[in-house]
Amino acid sequence: MTTKVLAAADMTRLLEVVGRDQFMDLMIERLRARFLDHSADAVEVRTRDGFRYDKPDLGLIEWMPTHEIGGPVVVKMVGYHPANPIQRSLPSVIATSSMWDTETGQLVAIADATLLTAVRTGATSGLATELLARTGPIAVGLAGLGAQAITQLHAVSRVREIDHVIGFDDDPDVAASFAERADFLGLDIDTSGSDRAATILGEVDVLCTCTSVDIGAGPVISDCEARPWLHVNAVGADFPGKLELPSAFANRSFVVPDTLEQCLVEGECQQVSSDRIGPALSEMLQRADEFADRRDELTVFDSTGWAVEDDVALRLAVELATAHGVGSQIELERLPRDPHDPYGTV
Amino acid sequence: MTTKVLAAADMTRLLEVVGRDQFMDLMIERLRARFLDHSADAVEVRTRDGFRYDKPDLGLIEWMPTHEIGGPVVVKMVGYHPANPIQRSLPSVIATSSMWDTETGQLVAIADATLLTAVRTGATSGLATELLARTGPIAVGLAGLGAQAITQLHAVSRVREIDHVIGFDDDPDVAASFAERADFLGLDIDTSGSDRAATILGEVDVLCTCTSVDIGAGPVISDCEARPWLHVNAVGADFPGKLELPSAFANRSFVVPDTLEQCLVEGECQQVSSDRIGPALSEMLQRADEFADRRDELTVFDSTGWAVEDDVALRLAVELATAHGVGSQIELERLPRDPHDPYGTV
Repeated sequence: MTTKVLAAADMTRLLEVVGRDQFMDLMIERLRARFLDHSADAVEVRTRDGFRYDKPDLGLIEWMPTHEIGGPVVVKMVGYHPANPIQRSLPSVIATSSMWDTETGQLVAIADATLLTAVRTGATSGLATELLARTGPIAVGLAGLGAQAITQLHAVSRVREIDHVIGFDDDPDVAASFAERADFLGLDIDTSGSDRAATILGEVDVLCTCTSVDIGAGPVISDCEARPWLHVNAVGADFPGKLELPSAFANRSFVVPDTLEQCLVEGECQQVSSDRIGPALSEMLQRADEFADRRDELTVFDSTGWAVEDDVALRLAVELATAHGVGSQIELERLPRDPHDPYGTV
Repeated sequence: MTTKVLAAADMTRLLEVVGRDQFMDLMIERLRARFLDHSADAVEVRTRDGFRYDKPDLGLIEWMPTHEIGGPVVVKMVGYHPANPIQRSLPSVIATSSMWDTETGQLVAIADATLLTAVRTGATSGLATELLARTGPIAVGLAGLGAQAITQLHAVSRVREIDHVIGFDDDPDVAASFAERADFLGLDIDTSGSDRAATILGEVDVLCTCTSVDIGAGPVISDCEARPWLHVNAVGADFPGKLELPSAFANRSFVVPDTLEQCLVEGECQQVSSDRIGPALSEMLQRADEFADRRDELTVFDSTGWAVEDDVALRLAVELATAHGVGSQIELERLPRDPHDPYGTV
């Protein structure tokens, strides 16, 4: 067996061939199907674990393993190095996903998952938005205008008609470039406001927070009177002590974790009273009828990143790449003539 | 940054270029240096974890992450599928090692680690043999004559003069082919005996057990009067309930784990009384003067496979491959012109 490699350039090409909207729509569709089908008996998911360090800079490298019983093992390795964009012109989040055949233990595929991570994170917020946000033309807020903001907005635009967008970022260069980066969406985007963080809760129907706020430095927005039906996709909190939302606001909202155990350690759920925390997104989708009226209430989707999403994302990418002839194959693994002879091919 | 790929064929070529003996000697040397230098403060090692399943066949896929503070993160993914050799002509152990830069989170290298695993497992037994076995021309026993037996014998031959070798395997074809596979060692090898498992403990000075014994099916040798100075490298036990040695024999030996926590769950230490378990191999090497007289006693090295060994092995392979121009580079990771634009290169 050879190993399929989907490198950076392959993922770019795949997105061109398939089309951004179609790719995002398929990702949302596959996530929905998998979440609706999810049961703890059928999928083993390990809590994200990793190494965290503060030299040379603050950073972490983590692994997110998952195994659908009878299917492959998928492991995403993800690095988060917040100094990357400014110091090295690299993304803060760099990820690689690998798929393993459980019949033989062979590596089936390895893919750059940086783009995939951004797309699946957006797509999952899209699912939450579809479930929990008001319908009709909506105003969308973006706290933080980096890479994740693009895919958040893209996904929301696939599930809701957007009237206009209000965004802000601490870095004026990042704010200034956003409209161009999001130009393909054809939306009315305003990133000109000063101190929009003070008022954004009252100005929009859906808010996506996707900052690289430092540990202990949150929240990134001020509490104020929100629209009663405001839905927030809180994406940035993914580390103990890292929080984007004002505690008072989070605690008067209905909070939906992607995966509770992780959200309690790394997500907004760190600061949310247990009686405000609802079921996980997959369970809410399975019981959607019970939660229809939540669209009229304050809701928060606490997105820390669930390994099952990465499993879905990699499988979709491999499927599409195979269908469109994208990617390459390498003979990574040793296939000796005699499996009992480790030096056999020398 | 591009990612260095050391595929199966590259590892084969590297071994040809460097030479098997030189490669094994370097591996032993680097392991010794790292073990002597080891401290829990300087290296983070996660206990091996993974997914274990019994369909389609019994198997497991595990991850072994390690991080030398200030250095790279190395993760070995290892699959163990005991039906592979007979059903698929594949090795039962297939492994891949990856190295991550902790400054940026980028993937520095990915290597087929099947051969590397066999070599480092042999080399570690070599270190234990050097520390715990009698000197002078020795008789070596091999319980199990598969792939691991080759590198076990090779490593022992680099640290001790070998008078002759006695080996056996349940599979007559595997037994019959061993002498040819080990021919490069130029040793006197006898694999002709029937029921050698009943007497081997009394016939050799060093014994390496490296079978794929089923859970609950051990031991693979009978207890009998052993030479008082016998040293055993017990390599096969790596799963709860999987044991190669007779309990009575293990409990009258001085047992040295590679890493105690793991050995208590998966190794021979499962069946050994705590007062018979000594310090880990790295600690013994650091305090070698205190343990010199152990060479005259019954000793067992309980080798379950320590992630630090895989770190050492991958670094050595990457260093040698770079020096000798072996391997290829792929641009696995996305390097967008603007790190804030996930779709930027489309």
